[in-house]
Amino acid sequence: MKKVMKFGGSSVKDAIRIKRVAKRILKEKKKGEEIVVVLSAMGDTTDDLIALAKEISDSPSKREMDMLLTTGEQVSSSLLAMALSDLGVNAISLNAFQARIKTNSVYGNAKIKNIDSERIQNELDAGRVAVVTGFQGINKNEDMLTLGRGGSDTTAVAIAAAIGADICEIYTDVDGIYTGDPRIIENARRLDYISYDGMLEMATLGAKVLHNRSVEMAKRYNVTLVVKSSLEEGDGTRVLEGKAVEGLLIDGVTVDDDVARLAVIGLLNEPGMAFKIFNELSKADINVDMILQSVGRDGKKDITFTVSIDDAKEAYNIINGLKERFGFEDVSLDEKVSKVSLIGAGIQSNFNVATKMFEALYNVGVNIQMISTSEIRITVLVDEEESARGAKAVHDVFLND
Amino acid sequence: MKKVMKFGGSSVKDAIRIKRVAKRILKEKKKGEEIVVVLSAMGDTTDDLIALAKEISDSPSKREMDMLLTTGEQVSSSLLAMALSDLGVNAISLNAFQARIKTNSVYGNAKIKNIDSERIQNELDAGRVAVVTGFQGINKNEDMLTLGRGGSDTTAVAIAAAIGADICEIYTDVDGIYTGDPRIIENARRLDYISYDGMLEMATLGAKVLHNRSVEMAKRYNVTLVVKSSLEEGDGTRVLEGKAVEGLLIDGVTVDDDVARLAVIGLLNEPGMAFKIFNELSKADINVDMILQSVGRDGKKDITFTVSIDDAKEAYNIINGLKERFGFEDVSLDEKVSKVSLIGAGIQSNFNVATKMFEALYNVGVNIQMISTSEIRITVLVDEEESARGAKAVHDVFLND
Repeated sequence: MKKVMKFGGSSVKDAIRIKRVAKRILKEKKKGEEIVVVLSAMGDTTDDLIALAKEISDSPSKREMDMLLTTGEQVSSSLLAMALSDLGVNAISLNAFQARIKTNSVYGNAKIKNIDSERIQNELDAGRVAVVTGFQGINKNEDMLTLGRGGSDTTAVAIAAAIGADICEIYTDVDGIYTGDPRIIENARRLDYISYDGMLEMATLGAKVLHNRSVEMAKRYNVTLVVKSSLEEGDGTRVLEGKAVEGLLIDGVTVDDDVARLAVIGLLNEPGMAFKIFNELSKADINVDMILQSVGRDGKKDITFTVSIDDAKEAYNIINGLKERFGFEDVSLDEKVSKVSLIGAGIQSNFNVATKMFEALYNVGVNIQMISTSEIRITVLVDEEESARGAKAVHDVFLND
Repeated sequence: MKKVMKFGGSSVKDAIRIKRVAKRILKEKKKGEEIVVVLSAMGDTTDDLIALAKEISDSPSKREMDMLLTTGEQVSSSLLAMALSDLGVNAISLNAFQARIKTNSVYGNAKIKNIDSERIQNELDAGRVAVVTGFQGINKNEDMLTLGRGGSDTTAVAIAAAIGADICEIYTDVDGIYTGDPRIIENARRLDYISYDGMLEMATLGAKVLHNRSVEMAKRYNVTLVVKSSLEEGDGTRVLEGKAVEGLLIDGVTVDDDVARLAVIGLLNEPGMAFKIFNELSKADINVDMILQSVGRDGKKDITFTVSIDDAKEAYNIINGLKERFGFEDVSLDEKVSKVSLIGAGIQSNFNVATKMFEALYNVGVNIQMISTSEIRITVLVDEEESARGAKAVHDVFLND
């Protein structure tokens, strides 16, 4: 069997952990597997390098920042190759240039265009474990680039697709995907399976185990992903095509506190008003998420919407600056809100799910401020202080079996 | 004018120094120069990475060690490029792969085979300062390798030769090459000029400013080297073809304490005996330097020779193990010896120089244990405690003007 094993920064944060990862790989190698390992940088390396750059410049060149950051994975990968050799495992580290991971030229947030897998395959054919630097690639000018958040997961999936791996294992500090955040919901339980779409909703909505870019890519190339613990044995959670996941109705409940609500009050009831406001936000690269439009006093209307908490203050300032031009009355910002979401393929086929979810929230006195839905998701916006209570109540109704 | 500027690890050991180096480069750039910068890793980075590898493995793979160490210069180079951009200087960092520095495959001590200078030249043509990682190259398998001690100097000279630079400036923490070590010889003075051959002797014999590999390469490709201070203004010392250095008789006096003397006593006076002993040392990669053979008692002979202090104990043990096989009486080791050398083109044309040097030593009561000479060098082995006194006396006679 051919497999990709990806380990994150906390799994390789010091020499002891690197040796532990090497032992883990040895165990797989002994089964006769062909193995590509994808690594992140050690622990806080990336943050340390960013801090160093900030000592040099307030706004460092993105091209040079990527040149700087790509060293982090080269360090961890070469160290792991040493640790593997020490255990008698033939291993070689490969950086993005050697592994031929080609990206576009968006520094700091590059997308993988293709991987010429010849070198990796040659190393596997020679019986070696290939240890590939995650989170990086090279563009057509031979510049080194980083892939942005969750980049090492994406590297792992891209390599799995390129070499036709049977499985792509993501090792992390939890032992799989849970029906809810165990810190909030005590009786949350590990899922054996989840569909790509379910995982995408979970990833987007705050389950920080897998980045959605890697899940999207896994879905597109039909790569079977497994999320498992780097610390203990266990089957983890398999992420695969929805059709393969029988009888799976509800995946889980997520809570996302990193959200803020803005309300624009007393807009003239003219066509295109909402579009014009959202267009100004879009120019500043601010994404609008949930939207509620309502008719208010005097035939005027109010528009309420949510943005990421990181963009909240900027969005408020932009809209406040439009008051005269667009002639609305006021804008308000509330950063103390949360999104509680219920996710699962069972939602689209079962109209009753939404009703049961709202009832569960009502029963514990949680007020719903906004609602949005997709085929496999129902999201409600609630007061941040009520989000944990609400999530628990919803989990109890759908997942406490 | 096209120039290469090389800065060592202590010149870029923290953000403050990196910014200072950037200002220095800005000053040159303002004169309209085309500039390639070659950098070492920051301060103790290389040592820190080696220590990290030792935590993983007692004998780390050399291929992986090079992969690990090459990150050091990539970090310093990208940071300097950021600092230059901040000063408004268009700059780009290039690692060995991007700068196309091709080496052989001797990990840890690779030799540069050639540099395809197209990328560097393109960056210069675009008005950029190219900041190239020193100390590293890539081989035909696209592995990354380090060049061994003094490697960044060698990179600088090799690039200067490849791009046809007018000058290669080596910035360091002293302001040039001195007639003697100022810590020993108070009235040592800075040389304005020195020949390649004179510099080679000085470099080999303990003036640690330039590594001899870089000087050899500069001589071969006729690259004008300048050694200057990274901290203060000044002309430094120019290293160039001997013929160009008129009236230069004596370059300086060096002291090398990193030497040990071995004496093999009572060898049978048979042909090939010395060869057989040195052959055993050669198998262990131990170089023999000065050699003295003398006829002793009973028609037997003694052989005295020097080795590097690092090899002394191993050499002693090897020879001691040969006692029965070769039938000699004893072997002794003296680590408390020093080489004092007088260097200069004036030596070959002036028989009197040696006599004057020996007289100077005699006058201060320094006993000469061994002598060796080259066309432009006279070296004597003396007691380590007497080396400073001897060197001062020799310097006074030849260089105190």
